[in-house]
Amino acid sequence: MHETRIRVRFDEVDTMDVVHHPRYLVYFEVARTEYFRDLGMAYRDVMAGGTHLAIIEAGARYMRSAKYDDELVVETRCTVVGGASVTLRYAVRRGEETLATGFTRLGAVDLAGRAKRLPEDVRAKFAAVLESDPHGAGGSRVQTGA
Amino acid sequence: MHETRIRVRFDEVDTMDVVHHPRYLVYFEVARTEYFRDLGMAYRDVMAGGTHLAIIEAGARYMRSAKYDDELVVETRCTVVGGASVTLRYAVRRGEETLATGFTRLGAVDLAGRAKRLPEDVRAKFAAVLESDPHGAGGSRVQTGA
Amino acid sequence: MHETRIRVRFDEVDTMDVVHHPRYLVYFEVARTEYFRDLGMAYRDVMAGGTHLAIIEAGARYMRSAKYDDELVVETRCTVVGGASVTLRYAVRRGEETLATGFTRLGAVDLAGRAKRLPEDVRAKFAAVLESDPHGAGGSRVQTGA
Amino acid sequence: MHETRIRVRFDEVDTMDVVHHPRYLVYFEVARTEYFRDLGMAYRDVMAGGTHLAIIEAGARYMRSAKYDDELVVETRCTVVGGASVTLRYAVRRGEETLATGFTRLGAVDLAGRAKRLPEDVRAKFAAVLESDPHGAGGSRVQTGA
Repeated sequence: MHETRIRVRFDEVDTMDVVHHPRYLVYFEVARTEYFRDLGMAYRDVMAGGTHLAIIEAGARYMRSAKYDDELVVETRCTVVGGASVTLRYAVRRGEETLATGFTRLGAVDLAGRAKRLPEDVRAKFAAVLESDPHGAGGSRVQTGA
Repeated sequence: MHETRIRVRFDEVDTMDVVHHPRYLVYFEVARTEYFRDLGMAYRDVMAGGTHLAIIEAGARYMRSAKYDDELVVETRCTVVGGASVTLRYAVRRGEETLATGFTRLGAVDLAGRAKRLPEDVRAKFAAVLESDPHGAGGSRVQTGA
Repeated sequence: MHETRIRVRFDEVDTMDVVHHPRYLVYFEVARTEYFRDLGMAYRDVMAGGTHLAIIEAGARYMRSAKYDDELVVETRCTVVGGASVTLRYAVRRGEETLATGFTRLGAVDLAGRAKRLPEDVRAKFAAVLESDPHGAGGSRVQTGA
Repeated sequence: MHETRIRVRFDEVDTMDVVHHPRYLVYFEVARTEYFRDLGMAYRDVMAGGTHLAIIEAGARYMRSAKYDDELVVETRCTVVGGASVTLRYAVRRGEETLATGFTRLGAVDLAGRAKRLPEDVRAKFAAVLESDPHGAGGSRVQTGA
Protein backbone atom coordinates (compact mmCIF):
# COMPACT_ATOMS: atom_id res chain seq x y z
CA MET A 1 0.00 0.00 0.00
CA HIS A 2 1.25 3.44 -0.94
CA GLU A 3 0.45 6.78 0.73
CA THR A 4 0.36 10.26 -0.76
CA ARG A 5 -0.27 13.44 1.23
CA ILE A 6 -2.49 16.13 -0.25
CA ARG A 7 -3.43 19.52 1.18
CA VAL A 8 -6.92 20.66 0.09
CA ARG A 9 -6.73 23.79 -2.07
CA PHE A 10 -9.20 26.65 -1.89
CA ASP A 11 -10.41 26.11 -5.46
CA GLU A 12 -11.30 22.52 -4.64
CA VAL A 13 -14.17 23.18 -2.22
CA ASP A 14 -17.74 24.17 -2.95
CA THR A 15 -20.16 26.64 -1.39
CA MET A 16 -20.47 24.46 1.72
CA ASP A 17 -16.66 24.25 2.16
CA VAL A 18 -16.79 20.62 1.04
CA VAL A 19 -14.30 19.19 -1.47
CA HIS A 20 -16.18 18.91 -4.75
CA HIS A 21 -16.73 15.23 -5.54
CA PRO A 22 -15.04 15.06 -8.99
CA ARG A 23 -11.88 16.32 -7.33
CA TYR A 24 -11.41 12.95 -5.63
CA LEU A 25 -10.72 11.44 -9.03
CA VAL A 26 -7.98 14.06 -9.41
CA TYR A 27 -6.63 13.14 -5.96
CA PHE A 28 -6.59 9.49 -7.05
CA GLU A 29 -4.60 10.55 -10.11
CA VAL A 30 -2.11 12.54 -8.03
CA ALA A 31 -1.70 9.49 -5.77
CA ARG A 32 -1.32 7.24 -8.80
CA THR A 33 1.50 9.40 -10.16
CA GLU A 34 3.37 9.08 -6.85
CA TYR A 35 2.64 5.36 -6.62
CA PHE A 36 4.12 4.80 -10.08
CA ARG A 37 7.17 6.84 -9.12
CA ASP A 38 7.68 4.73 -5.99
CA LEU A 39 7.43 1.57 -8.08
CA GLY A 40 10.37 2.90 -10.10
CA MET A 41 8.49 3.91 -13.23
CA ALA A 42 7.58 7.59 -13.43
CA TYR A 43 4.31 7.86 -15.28
CA ARG A 44 5.74 10.47 -17.61
CA ASP A 45 8.39 7.95 -18.62
CA VAL A 46 5.67 5.37 -19.34
CA MET A 47 4.04 7.95 -21.63
CA ALA A 48 7.39 8.83 -23.20
CA GLY A 49 7.70 5.11 -23.95
CA GLY A 50 4.54 5.25 -26.04
CA THR A 51 1.90 4.01 -23.62
CA HIS A 52 -0.90 5.92 -21.98
CA LEU A 53 -3.05 4.31 -19.30
CA ALA A 54 -6.56 5.44 -20.11
CA ILE A 55 -9.35 5.28 -17.55
CA ILE A 56 -11.86 2.59 -18.52
CA GLU A 57 -13.96 2.82 -15.40
CA ALA A 58 -13.89 4.83 -12.19
CA GLY A 59 -16.02 5.09 -9.09
CA ALA A 60 -16.10 6.57 -5.62
CA ARG A 61 -18.09 6.40 -2.40
CA TYR A 62 -18.22 9.51 -0.26
CA MET A 63 -18.61 9.01 3.48
CA ARG A 64 -17.41 12.24 5.09
CA SER A 65 -16.49 15.59 3.66
CA ALA A 66 -13.05 17.19 3.45
CA LYS A 67 -12.64 20.94 3.92
CA TYR A 68 -10.30 23.67 2.69
CA ASP A 69 -6.76 23.31 4.06
CA ASP A 70 -7.33 19.78 5.40
CA GLU A 71 -4.36 17.44 5.19
CA LEU A 72 -5.42 14.22 3.54
CA VAL A 73 -3.70 10.93 2.93
CA VAL A 74 -4.58 8.91 -0.16
CA GLU A 75 -3.81 5.22 0.16
CA THR A 76 -3.34 3.41 -3.14
CA ARG A 77 -3.08 -0.29 -3.85
CA CYS A 78 -3.16 -2.47 -6.92
CA THR A 79 -5.88 -5.12 -6.76
CA VAL A 80 -5.94 -6.66 -10.23
CA VAL A 81 -3.43 -6.77 -13.07
CA GLY A 82 -4.17 -8.30 -16.46
CA GLY A 83 -2.45 -8.32 -19.81
CA ALA A 84 -3.91 -5.02 -20.92
CA SER A 85 -5.35 -3.39 -17.81
CA VAL A 86 -4.75 -2.77 -14.13
CA THR A 87 -7.15 -1.89 -11.31
CA LEU A 88 -6.13 0.40 -8.46
CA ARG A 89 -8.10 1.08 -5.28
CA TYR A 90 -7.89 4.19 -3.14
CA ALA A 91 -8.91 5.34 0.31
CA VAL A 92 -8.81 9.00 1.31
CA ARG A 93 -8.16 9.52 5.01
CA ARG A 94 -7.95 12.49 7.38
CA GLY A 95 -6.25 11.19 10.50
CA GLU A 96 -8.21 8.11 11.56
CA GLU A 97 -11.28 8.92 9.49
CA THR A 98 -11.92 7.44 6.06
CA LEU A 99 -13.56 10.14 3.97
CA ALA A 100 -13.95 8.30 0.67
CA THR A 101 -12.94 5.17 -1.19
CA GLY A 102 -12.75 4.53 -4.89
CA PHE A 103 -11.17 2.67 -7.77
CA THR A 104 -9.97 3.17 -11.31
CA ARG A 105 -9.53 0.53 -13.99
CA LEU A 106 -6.82 1.58 -16.42
CA GLY A 107 -6.32 0.20 -19.90
CA ALA A 108 -3.16 0.50 -21.95
CA VAL A 109 -3.49 2.49 -25.18
CA ASP A 110 -0.91 3.74 -27.65
CA LEU A 111 -0.51 7.45 -28.23
CA ALA A 112 -3.19 7.35 -30.93
CA GLY A 113 -5.61 5.90 -28.37
CA ARG A 114 -5.68 2.31 -29.65
CA ALA A 115 -5.84 -0.50 -27.09
CA LYS A 116 -2.62 -2.43 -26.60
CA ARG A 117 -1.00 -4.80 -24.10
CA LEU A 118 0.53 -3.36 -20.95
CA PRO A 119 4.28 -2.82 -21.41
CA GLU A 120 5.92 -5.89 -19.90
CA ASP A 121 7.88 -3.91 -17.27
CA VAL A 122 4.69 -2.18 -16.08
CA ARG A 123 2.78 -5.46 -15.90
CA ALA A 124 5.67 -7.12 -14.09
CA LYS A 125 5.90 -4.37 -11.46
CA PHE A 126 2.24 -4.68 -10.58
CA ALA A 127 2.37 -8.49 -10.67
CA ALA A 128 5.28 -8.37 -8.21
CA VAL A 129 3.30 -6.06 -5.92
CA LEU A 130 0.36 -8.47 -5.94
CA GLU A 131 2.51 -11.53 -5.35
CA SER A 132 4.28 -9.92 -2.40
CA ASP A 133 0.94 -9.06 -0.80
CA PRO A 134 -1.57 -11.71 -1.89
CA HIS A 135 -3.97 -11.13 0.99
CA GLY A 136 -3.49 -7.42 1.55
CA ALA A 137 -5.87 -6.20 -1.06
CA GLY A 138 -8.81 -8.46 -0.32
CA GLY A 139 -8.86 -10.45 -3.50
CA SER A 140 -5.89 -9.11 -5.41
CA ARG A 141 -4.93 -11.28 -8.30
CA VAL A 142 -2.77 -11.54 -11.35
CA GLN A 143 -4.88 -12.39 -14.34
CA THR A 144 -3.62 -14.24 -17.33
CA GLY A 145 -6.00 -12.48 -19.72
CA ALA A 146 -6.79 -8.77 -20.13
CA MET B 1 -35.14 11.49 -20.23
CA HIS B 2 -33.56 14.91 -20.31
CA GLU B 3 -30.86 16.22 -22.67
CA THR B 4 -28.24 18.90 -22.08
CA ARG B 5 -25.80 20.13 -24.71
CA ILE B 6 -22.19 20.79 -23.73
CA ARG B 7 -19.32 22.08 -25.86
CA VAL B 8 -15.93 20.72 -24.73
CA ARG B 9 -13.68 23.50 -23.45
CA PHE B 10 -9.95 23.69 -24.09
CA ASP B 11 -9.10 23.39 -20.38
CA GLU B 12 -11.03 20.11 -20.19
CA VAL B 13 -8.76 18.00 -22.39
CA ASP B 14 -5.45 16.37 -21.57
CA THR B 15 -2.16 15.98 -23.44
CA MET B 16 -3.78 13.53 -25.86
CA ASP B 17 -6.69 15.91 -26.61
CA VAL B 18 -9.00 13.63 -24.65
CA VAL B 19 -11.50 15.00 -22.11
CA HIS B 20 -10.01 14.32 -18.68
CA HIS B 21 -12.08 11.63 -16.97
CA PRO B 22 -13.05 13.53 -13.77
CA ARG B 23 -14.60 16.17 -16.01
CA TYR B 24 -17.45 13.78 -16.86
CA LEU B 25 -18.66 14.09 -13.27
CA VAL B 26 -18.76 17.85 -13.84
CA TYR B 27 -20.71 17.31 -17.07
CA PHE B 28 -23.15 15.12 -15.12
CA GLU B 29 -23.53 17.97 -12.64
CA VAL B 30 -24.16 20.54 -15.39
CA ALA B 31 -26.78 18.18 -16.86
CA ARG B 32 -28.31 17.68 -13.40
CA THR B 33 -28.69 21.43 -12.93
CA GLU B 34 -30.59 21.68 -16.24
CA TYR B 35 -32.67 18.59 -15.45
CA PHE B 36 -33.76 20.10 -12.13
CA ARG B 37 -34.62 23.36 -13.87
CA ASP B 38 -36.78 21.50 -16.41
CA LEU B 39 -38.57 19.70 -13.60
CA GLY B 40 -39.54 23.12 -12.28
CA MET B 41 -37.18 23.29 -9.32
CA ALA B 42 -33.95 25.22 -9.95
CA TYR B 43 -31.24 23.61 -7.89
CA ARG B 44 -30.21 26.94 -6.44
CA ASP B 45 -33.77 27.31 -5.10
CA VAL B 46 -33.52 23.85 -3.50
CA MET B 47 -30.34 25.05 -1.76
CA ALA B 48 -31.97 28.36 -0.82
CA GLY B 49 -34.69 26.23 0.80
CA GLY B 50 -32.13 24.65 3.09
CA THR B 51 -31.32 21.38 1.34
CA HIS B 52 -28.17 20.33 -0.42
CA LEU B 53 -28.03 17.09 -2.38
CA ALA B 54 -24.65 15.62 -1.53
CA ILE B 55 -23.02 12.96 -3.68
CA ILE B 56 -22.99 9.63 -1.81
CA GLU B 57 -21.64 7.56 -4.67
CA ALA B 58 -20.62 8.18 -8.27
CA GLY B 59 -19.24 6.12 -11.10
CA ALA B 60 -18.52 6.21 -14.80
CA ARG B 61 -17.53 3.90 -17.65
CA TYR B 62 -15.52 5.39 -20.48
CA MET B 63 -15.96 3.86 -23.92
CA ARG B 64 -14.74 6.49 -26.40
CA SER B 65 -12.95 9.77 -25.94
CA ALA B 66 -14.28 13.28 -26.49
CA LYS B 67 -12.05 16.01 -27.90
CA TYR B 68 -11.70 19.78 -27.64
CA ASP B 69 -14.62 21.63 -29.23
CA ASP B 70 -16.79 18.52 -29.59
CA GLU B 71 -20.50 19.04 -29.10
CA LEU B 72 -21.81 16.52 -26.61
CA VAL B 73 -25.26 15.62 -25.38
CA VAL B 74 -25.70 14.41 -21.81
CA GLU B 75 -28.85 12.35 -21.29
CA THR B 76 -30.08 12.28 -17.71
CA ARG B 77 -32.74 10.11 -16.16
CA CYS B 78 -33.89 9.34 -12.65
CA THR B 79 -33.81 5.62 -11.86
CA VAL B 80 -34.48 5.41 -8.12
CA VAL B 81 -36.05 7.77 -5.60
CA GLY B 82 -36.22 7.06 -1.88
CA GLY B 83 -37.13 9.05 1.17
CA ALA B 84 -33.68 10.56 1.56
CA SER B 85 -31.86 9.90 -1.69
CA VAL B 86 -32.23 9.82 -5.45
CA THR B 87 -30.19 8.06 -8.14
CA LEU B 88 -29.63 9.61 -11.55
CA ARG B 89 -28.07 7.92 -14.59
CA TYR B 90 -26.28 9.65 -17.44
CA ALA B 91 -25.11 8.87 -20.95
CA VAL B 92 -22.76 11.17 -22.83
CA ARG B 93 -23.24 11.06 -26.59
CA ARG B 94 -21.59 12.64 -29.62
CA GLY B 95 -24.01 12.15 -32.48
CA GLU B 96 -24.86 8.46 -32.53
CA GLU B 97 -21.88 7.39 -30.43
CA THR B 98 -22.09 6.79 -26.71
CA LEU B 99 -18.84 8.01 -25.19
CA ALA B 100 -19.50 7.30 -21.52
CA THR B 101 -22.19 6.35 -19.05
CA GLY B 102 -22.40 6.96 -15.34
CA PHE B 103 -24.50 7.51 -12.26
CA THR B 104 -24.67 9.55 -9.09
CA ARG B 105 -26.54 8.73 -5.90
CA LEU B 106 -27.50 11.91 -4.10
CA GLY B 107 -28.45 12.18 -0.45
CA ALA B 108 -30.31 15.08 1.12
CA VAL B 109 -28.38 17.02 3.77
CA ASP B 110 -29.10 20.26 5.57
CA LEU B 111 -26.75 23.20 5.17
CA ALA B 112 -24.63 21.94 8.06
CA GLY B 113 -24.17 18.65 6.21
CA ARG B 114 -26.48 16.47 8.35
CA ALA B 115 -28.56 13.83 6.59
CA LYS B 116 -32.25 14.63 6.27
CA ARG B 117 -35.29 13.52 4.28
CA LEU B 118 -35.71 14.78 0.75
CA PRO B 119 -37.97 17.84 0.67
CA GLU B 120 -41.44 16.53 -0.18
CA ASP B 121 -41.73 18.56 -3.42
CA VAL B 122 -38.37 17.23 -4.66
CA ARG B 123 -39.29 13.65 -3.84
CA ALA B 124 -42.71 14.07 -5.46
CA LYS B 125 -41.22 15.44 -8.70
CA PHE B 126 -38.91 12.48 -9.10
CA ALA B 127 -41.64 10.00 -8.09
CA ALA B 128 -43.89 11.50 -10.78
CA VAL B 129 -41.12 11.12 -13.36
CA LEU B 130 -40.67 7.46 -12.44
CA GLU B 131 -44.39 6.73 -12.47
CA SER B 132 -44.83 8.30 -15.89
CA ASP B 133 -42.00 6.18 -17.30
CA PRO B 134 -41.97 2.92 -15.32
CA HIS B 135 -40.13 0.93 -17.97
CA GLY B 136 -37.97 3.60 -19.50
CA ALA B 137 -35.13 3.39 -17.09
CA GLY B 138 -34.71 -0.35 -16.90
CA GLY B 139 -35.73 -0.91 -13.33
CA SER B 140 -36.68 2.55 -12.14
CA ARG B 141 -38.58 2.47 -8.91
CA VAL B 142 -40.00 4.55 -6.13
CA GLN B 143 -38.76 3.26 -2.82
CA THR B 144 -40.65 3.60 0.39
CA GLY B 145 -37.48 3.76 2.50
CA ALA B 146 -34.33 5.83 2.05
CA MET C 1 -17.50 43.04 -30.60
CA HIS C 2 -18.46 39.43 -30.05
CA GLU C 3 -20.72 38.00 -27.31
CA THR C 4 -20.68 34.54 -25.74
CA ARG C 5 -23.21 33.34 -23.17
CA ILE C 6 -22.01 31.27 -20.22
CA ARG C 7 -24.01 29.72 -17.40
CA VAL C 8 -22.01 29.51 -14.14
CA ARG C 9 -21.43 25.89 -13.11
CA PHE C 10 -21.55 24.66 -9.55
CA ASP C 11 -17.89 23.65 -9.54
CA GLU C 12 -16.87 27.19 -10.50
CA VAL C 13 -17.90 28.94 -7.29
CA ASP C 14 -16.12 29.09 -3.95
CA THR C 15 -17.27 28.83 -0.34
CA MET C 16 -18.94 32.26 -0.59
CA ASP C 17 -20.85 31.29 -3.77
CA VAL C 18 -18.57 33.57 -5.78
CA VAL C 19 -17.04 32.48 -9.08
CA HIS C 20 -13.40 31.67 -8.34
CA HIS C 21 -11.20 34.31 -9.95
CA PRO C 22 -9.00 32.05 -12.14
CA ARG C 23 -12.16 30.80 -13.77
CA TYR C 24 -12.57 34.14 -15.55
CA LEU C 25 -9.50 33.28 -17.62
CA VAL C 26 -11.31 30.07 -18.60
CA TYR C 27 -14.41 32.10 -19.50
CA PHE C 28 -12.21 34.35 -21.65
CA GLU C 29 -10.91 31.23 -23.37
CA VAL C 30 -14.41 29.88 -24.00
CA ALA C 31 -15.37 33.27 -25.45
CA ARG C 32 -12.19 33.31 -27.56
CA THR C 33 -13.06 29.92 -29.05
CA GLU C 34 -16.49 31.22 -30.09
CA TYR C 35 -15.03 34.48 -31.36
CA PHE C 36 -12.59 32.59 -33.59
CA ARG C 37 -15.43 30.42 -34.88
CA ASP C 38 -17.48 33.49 -35.75
CA LEU C 39 -14.51 34.96 -37.61
CA GLY C 40 -14.57 31.82 -39.76
CA MET C 41 -11.52 30.09 -38.30
CA ALA C 42 -12.29 27.44 -35.69
CA TYR C 43 -9.44 27.44 -33.22
CA ARG C 44 -9.06 23.68 -33.53
CA ASP C 45 -8.45 24.17 -37.23
CA VAL C 46 -5.78 26.77 -36.46
CA MET C 47 -4.10 24.16 -34.24
CA ALA C 48 -4.55 21.47 -36.88
CA GLY C 49 -2.73 23.84 -39.22
CA GLY C 50 0.31 23.79 -36.95
CA THR C 51 -0.12 26.96 -34.90
CA HIS C 52 -0.97 27.33 -31.26
CA LEU C 53 -1.69 30.74 -29.77
CA ALA C 54 0.06 30.70 -26.43
CA ILE C 55 -0.82 33.14 -23.68
CA ILE C 56 2.03 35.63 -23.19
CA GLU C 57 0.25 37.82 -20.68
CA ALA C 58 -3.17 37.91 -19.05
CA GLY C 59 -4.91 40.07 -16.51
CA ALA C 60 -8.30 40.76 -14.97
CA ARG C 61 -10.05 43.29 -12.75
CA TYR C 62 -12.89 42.03 -10.60
CA MET C 63 -15.64 44.51 -9.77
CA ARG C 64 -18.67 42.41 -8.77
CA SER C 65 -19.07 38.73 -8.09
CA ALA C 66 -20.94 36.16 -10.16
CA LYS C 67 -22.84 33.33 -8.47
CA TYR C 68 -23.81 29.74 -9.24
CA ASP C 69 -26.34 29.46 -12.07
CA ASP C 70 -25.92 33.11 -13.17
CA GLU C 71 -26.19 33.73 -16.89
CA LEU C 72 -23.20 35.77 -18.01
CA VAL C 73 -22.25 37.39 -21.28
CA VAL C 74 -18.59 37.67 -22.21
CA GLU C 75 -17.86 40.44 -24.71
CA THR C 76 -14.67 39.94 -26.70
CA ARG C 77 -12.86 42.35 -28.98
CA CYS C 78 -9.52 42.49 -30.66
CA THR C 79 -7.52 45.60 -29.76
CA VAL C 80 -4.06 45.00 -31.21
CA VAL C 81 -2.74 42.72 -33.93
CA GLY C 82 0.94 42.41 -34.78
CA GLY C 83 3.00 40.08 -36.89
CA ALA C 84 3.36 37.46 -34.20
CA SER C 85 0.80 38.31 -31.54
CA VAL C 86 -2.72 39.54 -30.96
CA THR C 87 -4.36 41.17 -27.94
CA LEU C 88 -7.98 40.52 -27.02
CA ARG C 89 -10.01 42.34 -24.38
CA TYR C 90 -13.00 40.96 -22.51
CA ALA C 91 -15.85 42.24 -20.37
CA VAL C 92 -18.03 39.88 -18.35
CA ARG C 93 -21.57 41.17 -17.86
CA ARG C 94 -24.68 40.00 -16.03
CA GLY C 95 -27.53 42.04 -17.49
CA GLU C 96 -26.47 45.68 -17.23
CA GLU C 97 -23.74 45.06 -14.67
CA THR C 98 -20.09 44.67 -15.60
CA LEU C 99 -18.62 42.07 -13.28
CA ALA C 100 -15.06 41.93 -14.58
CA THR C 101 -12.82 43.01 -17.41
CA GLY C 102 -9.60 41.53 -18.67
CA PHE C 103 -7.21 40.90 -21.52
CA THR C 104 -4.96 38.25 -22.99
CA ARG C 105 -1.98 38.73 -25.27
CA LEU C 106 -1.50 35.70 -27.47
CA GLY C 107 1.67 34.79 -29.29
CA ALA C 108 1.92 32.35 -32.19
CA VAL C 109 4.01 29.26 -31.55
CA ASP C 110 4.52 26.08 -33.54
CA LEU C 111 3.50 22.75 -32.06
CA ALA C 112 6.92 22.39 -30.44
CA GLY C 113 6.35 25.70 -28.65
CA ARG C 114 8.74 27.86 -30.72
CA ALA C 115 7.66 31.43 -31.52
CA LYS C 116 6.58 32.02 -35.11
CA ARG C 117 4.67 34.57 -37.18
CA LEU C 118 0.89 34.56 -37.05
CA PRO C 119 -0.52 32.56 -39.98
CA GLU C 120 -1.39 35.14 -42.62
CA ASP C 121 -5.10 34.28 -42.69
CA VAL C 122 -5.35 34.70 -38.91
CA ARG C 123 -3.51 38.02 -38.99
CA ALA C 124 -5.65 39.22 -41.88
CA LYS C 125 -8.91 38.36 -40.11
CA PHE C 126 -7.97 40.38 -37.04
CA ALA C 127 -6.58 43.24 -39.14
CA ALA C 128 -9.91 43.38 -41.00
CA VAL C 129 -11.79 43.51 -37.70
CA LEU C 130 -9.66 46.38 -36.50
CA GLU C 131 -9.97 48.32 -39.74
CA SER C 132 -13.73 48.01 -39.76
CA ASP C 133 -13.92 49.35 -36.19
CA PRO C 134 -10.96 51.69 -35.73
CA HIS C 135 -12.50 53.62 -32.85
CA GLY C 136 -14.53 50.91 -31.21
CA ALA C 137 -11.84 49.42 -29.12
CA GLY C 138 -10.32 52.58 -27.67
CA GLY C 139 -6.96 52.47 -29.33
CA SER C 140 -7.17 49.39 -31.52
CA ARG C 141 -4.41 49.22 -34.04
CA VAL C 142 -2.71 47.07 -36.58
CA GLN C 143 0.97 46.91 -35.85
CA THR C 144 3.61 46.38 -38.44
CA GLY C 145 5.96 44.61 -36.02
CA ALA C 146 5.32 41.81 -33.52
CA MET D 1 10.20 36.17 0.40
CA HIS D 2 8.37 32.90 0.85
CA GLU D 3 8.70 29.69 -1.18
CA THR D 4 6.13 26.98 -1.86
CA ARG D 5 6.83 23.79 -3.79
CA ILE D 6 4.25 22.50 -6.24
CA ARG D 7 4.33 19.37 -8.38
CA VAL D 8 2.43 19.80 -11.67
CA ARG D 9 -0.59 17.50 -11.84
CA PHE D 10 -1.72 15.68 -14.95
CA ASP D 11 -5.04 17.53 -15.08
CA GLU D 12 -3.22 20.87 -15.13
CA VAL D 13 -1.60 20.56 -18.56
CA ASP D 14 -3.12 21.07 -21.99
CA THR D 15 -2.84 19.22 -25.30
CA MET D 16 0.74 20.45 -25.72
CA ASP D 17 1.77 19.25 -22.24
CA VAL D 18 1.93 22.86 -21.08
CA VAL D 19 0.41 24.01 -17.78
CA HIS D 20 -2.82 25.78 -18.68
CA HIS D 21 -2.41 29.50 -18.00
CA PRO D 22 -5.33 30.03 -15.56
CA ARG D 23 -3.75 27.38 -13.35
CA TYR D 24 -0.97 29.81 -12.41
CA LEU D 25 -3.54 31.86 -10.52
CA VAL D 26 -4.38 28.69 -8.60
CA TYR D 27 -0.67 28.13 -7.92
CA PHE D 28 -0.47 31.71 -6.63
CA GLU D 29 -3.39 30.92 -4.33
CA VAL D 30 -1.76 27.74 -3.05
CA ALA D 31 1.42 29.74 -2.38
CA ARG D 32 -0.60 32.47 -0.68
CA THR D 33 -2.19 29.96 1.67
CA GLU D 34 1.27 28.71 2.70
CA TYR D 35 2.62 32.26 2.99
CA PHE D 36 -0.20 33.20 5.35
CA ARG D 37 0.43 30.08 7.40
CA ASP D 38 4.12 30.96 7.72
CA LEU D 39 3.21 34.47 8.85
CA GLY D 40 1.30 32.85 11.69
CA MET D 41 -2.22 33.42 10.41
CA ALA D 42 -3.78 30.44 8.61
CA TYR D 43 -6.06 31.80 5.94
CA ARG D 44 -8.89 29.59 7.12
CA ASP D 45 -8.62 31.27 10.52
CA VAL D 46 -8.81 34.68 8.86
CA MET D 47 -12.05 33.52 7.19
CA ALA D 48 -13.32 32.04 10.45
CA GLY D 49 -12.74 35.49 11.94
CA GLY D 50 -15.18 37.01 9.47
CA THR D 51 -12.89 38.34 6.74
CA HIS D 52 -12.38 37.10 3.23
CA LEU D 53 -9.66 38.55 1.03
CA ALA D 54 -11.29 38.91 -2.37
CA ILE D 55 -9.25 39.28 -5.54
CA ILE D 56 -9.61 42.82 -6.91
CA GLU D 57 -7.06 42.46 -9.68
CA ALA D 58 -4.74 39.75 -10.93
CA GLY D 59 -2.24 39.38 -13.73
CA ALA D 60 0.49 37.12 -15.03
CA ARG D 61 3.26 37.07 -17.63
CA TYR D 62 4.20 33.73 -19.10
CA MET D 63 7.81 33.30 -20.22
CA ARG D 64 8.40 29.54 -20.38
CA SER D 65 6.08 26.61 -20.07
CA ALA D 66 5.83 24.06 -17.26
CA LYS D 67 5.08 20.42 -18.00
CA TYR D 68 3.38 17.50 -16.27
CA ASP D 69 5.27 16.28 -13.21
CA ASP D 70 7.62 19.29 -13.10
CA GLU D 71 8.60 20.46 -9.65
CA LEU D 72 8.00 24.18 -9.35
CA VAL D 73 8.77 26.75 -6.70
CA VAL D 74 6.43 29.70 -6.25
CA GLU D 75 8.08 32.68 -4.59
CA THR D 76 5.67 35.04 -2.87
CA ARG D 77 6.28 38.48 -1.46
CA CYS D 78 4.14 41.33 -0.20
CA THR D 79 4.78 44.58 -2.06
CA VAL D 80 2.05 46.94 -0.85
CA VAL D 81 -0.21 46.98 2.20
CA GLY D 82 -2.97 49.53 2.72
CA GLY D 83 -5.86 49.88 5.12
CA ALA D 84 -8.18 47.68 3.12
CA SER D 85 -6.02 45.85 0.61
CA VAL D 86 -2.71 44.10 0.11
CA THR D 87 -0.72 43.33 -3.02
CA LEU D 88 1.32 40.15 -3.39
CA ARG D 89 3.78 39.32 -6.16
CA TYR D 90 4.76 35.87 -7.34
CA ALA D 91 7.45 34.22 -9.42
CA VAL D 92 7.18 30.62 -10.56
CA ARG D 93 10.55 28.94 -11.00
CA ARG D 94 11.80 25.55 -12.15
CA GLY D 95 15.37 25.30 -10.99
CA GLU D 96 17.10 28.44 -12.22
CA GLU D 97 14.47 29.30 -14.81
CA THR D 98 11.68 31.78 -14.19
CA LEU D 99 8.59 30.45 -15.94
CA ALA D 100 6.09 33.15 -15.01
CA THR D 101 5.53 36.13 -12.77
CA GLY D 102 2.33 37.65 -11.52
CA PHE D 103 0.46 39.58 -8.86
CA THR D 104 -2.82 39.70 -7.02
CA ARG D 105 -4.38 42.66 -5.26
CA LEU D 106 -6.59 41.46 -2.44
CA GLY D 107 -9.32 43.51 -0.78
CA ALA D 108 -10.88 42.73 2.57
CA VAL D 109 -14.59 41.93 2.52
CA ASP D 110 -16.94 40.62 5.17
CA LEU D 111 -18.67 37.29 4.68
CA ALA D 112 -21.53 39.01 2.85
CA GLY D 113 -19.02 40.42 0.38
CA ARG D 114 -19.02 44.04 1.58
CA ALA D 115 -15.71 45.93 1.57
CA LYS D 116 -14.16 46.45 5.00
CA ARG D 117 -10.81 47.37 6.54
CA LEU D 118 -8.15 44.73 6.83
CA PRO D 119 -8.21 43.12 10.28
CA GLU D 120 -5.55 44.92 12.31
CA ASP D 121 -3.48 41.78 12.93
CA VAL D 122 -3.41 40.95 9.22
CA ARG D 123 -2.41 44.50 8.29
CA ALA D 124 0.25 44.54 11.02
CA LYS D 125 1.81 41.26 9.84
CA PHE D 126 2.21 42.53 6.29
CA ALA D 127 3.42 45.94 7.48
CA ALA D 128 6.08 44.19 9.57
CA VAL D 129 7.18 42.17 6.56
CA LEU D 130 7.54 45.30 4.46
CA GLU D 131 9.41 47.19 7.16
CA SER D 132 11.88 44.38 7.67
CA ASP D 133 12.60 44.25 3.94
CA PRO D 134 12.10 47.78 2.59
CA HIS D 135 14.27 47.27 -0.47
CA GLY D 136 13.65 43.63 -1.18
CA ALA D 137 10.50 43.99 -3.14
CA GLY D 138 11.52 46.83 -5.42
CA GLY D 139 9.16 49.49 -4.20
CA SER D 140 7.32 47.79 -1.35
CA ARG D 141 5.51 50.22 0.85
CA VAL D 142 3.05 50.58 3.66
CA GLN D 143 0.26 52.88 2.64
CA THR D 144 -1.71 54.96 5.04
CA GLY D 145 -4.87 54.81 2.91
CA ALA D 146 -6.62 51.87 1.30
